[in-house]
Parts: sequence; C-alpha cells; structure tokens
Amino acid sequence: MNLPDDKDILRGDIRAVARAIRAVEDGWPGSRALLTRLFAHAGRALTLGITGPPGAGKSTLVDRLTTHFRKQGKTVGVVAVDPTSPFSGGAILGDRIRMQNHATDDGVFIRSMATRGTLGGLSAATMAALLVLDASSKDVLIVETVGVGQDEVDIASEADLAIVVLVPGLGDEVQALKAGIMEIADLFVVNKADRDGADRLASEIEMMLSLTGETKRERPPVVRTVASASQGIDELAKTIEEVRARRESNGELAARRRERLLRQFEAQVEGLLREKVRRRIDALDSSLHLRDRVQTRQIDPYSAADETLKGIE
Amino acid sequence: MNLPDDKDILRGDIRAVARAIRAVEDGWPGSRALLTRLFAHAGRALTLGITGPPGAGKSTLVDRLTTHFRKQGKTVGVVAVDPTSPFSGGAILGDRIRMQNHATDDGVFIRSMATRGTLGGLSAATMAALLVLDASSKDVLIVETVGVGQDEVDIASEADLAIVVLVPGLGDEVQALKAGIMEIADLFVVNKADRDGADRLASEIEMMLSLTGETKRERPPVVRTVASASQGIDELAKTIEEVRARRESNGELAARRRERLLRQFEAQVEGLLREKVRRRIDALDSSLHLRDRVQTRQIDPYSAADETLKGIE
Repeated sequence: MNLPDDKDILRGDIRAVARAIRAVEDGWPGSRALLTRLFAHAGRALTLGITGPPGAGKSTLVDRLTTHFRKQGKTVGVVAVDPTSPFSGGAILGDRIRMQNHATDDGVFIRSMATRGTLGGLSAATMAALLVLDASSKDVLIVETVGVGQDEVDIASEADLAIVVLVPGLGDEVQALKAGIMEIADLFVVNKADRDGADRLASEIEMMLSLTGETKRERPPVVRTVASASQGIDELAKTIEEVRARRESNGELAARRRERLLRQFEAQVEGLLREKVRRRIDALDSSLHLRDRVQTRQIDPYSAADETLKGIE
Repeated sequence: MNLPDDKDILRGDIRAVARAIRAVEDGWPGSRALLTRLFAHAGRALTLGITGPPGAGKSTLVDRLTTHFRKQGKTVGVVAVDPTSPFSGGAILGDRIRMQNHATDDGVFIRSMATRGTLGGLSAATMAALLVLDASSKDVLIVETVGVGQDEVDIASEADLAIVVLVPGLGDEVQALKAGIMEIADLFVVNKADRDGADRLASEIEMMLSLTGETKRERPPVVRTVASASQGIDELAKTIEEVRARRESNGELAARRRERLLRQFEAQVEGLLREKVRRRIDALDSSLHLRDRVQTRQIDPYSAADETLKGIE
C-alpha cells in the first residue's frame, strides 16, 4: 500500500495514476493528504458528463470522442461508472474491453468503477478519481454513467457539461426514465441515428425543450450520431466546444465549477461524519447497549439516534 | 400542519394515515415524536419488497397481489418508490392511477414517493411511511422500487422478503442490470410469462442460482406470472407464504427484522447528524468563510471538511 510519487502522478505516468486512484478509492493511509496536494495541480481539465439509459451506446460514443480528442493532441481521462455488481468482476473486465482501442496510448487513461462498495460513496470516489486524473495533466475528463439511479444522474450533472444520450426505439417505459435526466442536459445526443424513429425522437426532444420554456437558459443543442460508425463525432465535438466557449465567456462555466467545489466540500463533511458516527455508536454501545435495545424493540430508532447524538451541536 | 390524532392513525383512518405520512415525509413539527409513539404499535406486518427493471410489470403485479390479499381478508399498505421526477408530478399522478382498482376499499392504502427531494433521504422517508402503515394495522406492506439505483435496490432488500421481478426479452443491456439485484432475491418472479423467451429466462435464473452455489442459504423459488391476466398470482402468494413460514420457523425472519432496525437506527443517526452539520457549516461560514475559500480554490474540499469537523469525536 505504498503511495506513488506525486511527480509521477503529475506527469501522467500510467502506473502511478492507476495506483493513486486505487489508493484514494480504498482509503489507503495518506490518501487524503495526497488528494489535498493534488488539488493544487488540478482545475484545468474540461469535464464532460455522459449519461443515458442502458443500451444507448454511451461506451462507444466515449471511445469515439476519445479518439477525436487524441487526434487534436488532447490527453483524455475516462471514469466509467459501471452498474455491474462487483461480485461479477464487471468493472475490471469492462476496463480491459474499453482499453483495447487505446491500450498503447499513454495519452488516455480509462478507469471503470463499480457502483457498490466504494468507500465513502460513489460520488466521492468518482470525484477523487477525477481529481487524480485532472492533476495528471489530462486535458479532457469524461465521466460516463448509466442515467437510471439518482446517484448516477447526479454525478453526470456535476460535470462542466452534461451530455444526455438517447436512442430511438427503447420503448415507452424506458423512455420514461428520461424524465429524471432531461433537466440536467446541456446537450443531447440522438445516437444510433440511422435507426427508424430517430427523427421522431429528435423532434420529441425539441418539443419537450420548447415546452419547458426556459427562456433564461440557452436551449441545449441536439446532435445526431452513429457512434459505432464514427458518424457525427466531429459535429458533436464541435458542438461541445461551442457550448463550452459560450459558457466560459458568460461566466456559467466558472459558476458551475464553484458549485461543484461546494458540493464536494459538503460531501466530504458527510463522509467524514459518517465514520465518526460509526465510531461513536461503537463506543456508546458498551455503555448504553443501544444496538441491542434497538434490535429488541426496547427503544425506537428515532429515540436511539437522539441518544447517540446528545451533546453534538 | 396539524398532526392527526394517534388513535385515528392506529385504527387505519385513511385521511389520518395520509396526513401522518405527509407529516413524517416533510418533517412537520412533532413528527419525530409521532414516529416514536407509533413505533410501539408497529412490528407485526409482513413487509414485501418488490423490485426489478423498468417495464417488468411491477405495478400490475402489486395491484393483483393486493387484490389477492384483500380476498383473504388482509389489509394492505403499498409504498411505491417512483423514479419519475417530482417536476413532472409523476408521484401524485401515479397514486391516482394506482388507486383506481382499490379506491373504494378502506383496507388498502397506496402511497407513491418521488425519489428526489425527500427530507433525510429516500430510505428514511420510505421507512417512516412503512412505520405509519404498520402502526395503522395493515397486515401486509408492499414496497415497490425500480431496481436500477442502489438506493432503490437497498430499500427492497430491507423488506422481510425481497421479490425480484424479471421479464423475457428486455435485451442484454437491461438484463445486465440484474447483476446488482440478483443477490438480494428471496424469490424470483418471471412476469409476462406468456411471452417468447420466458422458458429461457427461467432457466437462466435457475442456472445462475445453481452456479452461485450458496449451500447454506435456501435457493430462491422462481414463480411465473402473467400479472395483467391475473395468472400465477395464487401460486405466487402461496410461495410467498411458504418462504415466510420457513423463515419464521428457522429464525431468519426475526434476524432480518433485527438487522433492519439496526440499519434504521444508523440511518437516523446519519440523518440527524447531517442536519447538525449543515447548521455547523452555516455557523462556521461567518467566521472562517470556508465556503468562499473552497469555491475560490484557496482551500481544498478535504482540508475544509477536516476544519469543519474539528472537535467532533
């Protein structure tokens, strides 16, 4: 559990970066101090959040965008939040499959994260991984999540720019999932746009956008792609850059980053607090036997919680 | 914001129960004390957790199960955790649609909850609603969640019995979602079993169950239903009762309820603490300007969190 050298992380050495991410994910000794040091070197990368229902082709899209950015000479870090159970080893297998197009390219770092069992919660783990990648001099960070759980949607919405990927023909019930993620989109992608129903989907999105009537906010552009055939990727990258430039000049990008820092701060407070609570309950247990009394219904969970926190203001 | 009378809640008066749930959800003054009092009258109901991917027909299944239990003379409380955005008014609309088959039946209470914006988190809100329903003398409680986010899966897994609903033909990517929820199932339902692929899905489940080779735990039964045609519901209810009876006699049911109480206790501690910390950050802000310093990158979120919690042990 030796931490890598800061300077190796900062110059983007792949092994050092991988080890640093593992360290912060698993909470190795010294990993918090490492994050504090790396923070001073972070804050320059453009962070894209990509989300959408399962089957929308997000991974392929991320792969093609990565290729595009690399051609422009930009380095890329990807964090893919993988809904697969850690028991199935999905995340690790996922990395290997994802890596294959960029395996020999030192300018790309790809990391999959399981959505369970990450210390301090998924959001904190993702943020820490992004911070490491940011400090490792990546120009573009992409965080990809399945837009089905609230956590996953939140993570994507905290990026500089949230891209919601939809596809024609997923059926009504799956499209219902959109409701929760429509609000966060800064940009829509209609992927698999060569399929039947692509036009209808695009007009549905446009109609919905005109109905919500957000006059103060710019209307999110809708871009069509066929990621598997690398179609529409240039157009998508161009649109991303346009939105980014506009947000930079009108101050929205900076405002969003300030918001994100605030949420990270609050999330850190919560995470630390949770650890302290666990220790406190352990300590109280020997004197008050609260856990026992709760489990045997001698005291209700609400009163037991009050008891535990007595004296904390 | 007047709380209803305890005795009206306890005898299951629909308006009193509805008002009590609203009170505990929104944190009306006195609502925690109400939960503490109701706790003494709760703990008898059988709680079923029903989860599965979108489109699996969970709502219809819950509706038919409710009808079945009513025929047996049992009262039923349903909490449906609705993934629809609160902006769309989905939860309220959902209640109306769901209620239509049981609208004139005082022995059924149905409540939809949005997954966002619930005070103290989704899990705490669901648990509080279930506690009110339990105290209101319902015999069976059903909590229905979409098995896609971790929160939703957790909620279902905390029931006395977790039922995972799957359907043939949802495609590979959607089936991949199963991975996270397969482990929690005490019972599988293959719904829409008249569709092509029902046999294959059932054997896939059986094969997976035999592969995991949990010898110490009983293997979860697999029941086929066509909920929309009320087929297989009697069989499902019979299987539920068999699993329940077995769990009761071998002590697993009691153990699970003890576990659940412990988690509720810990969740309460966390929730309370979160409020306290929010107040603390507000108070510290005027002296240390932590929020400002975080937002302008003068201090990193990790160090700022340490600063905030200084002195709390």
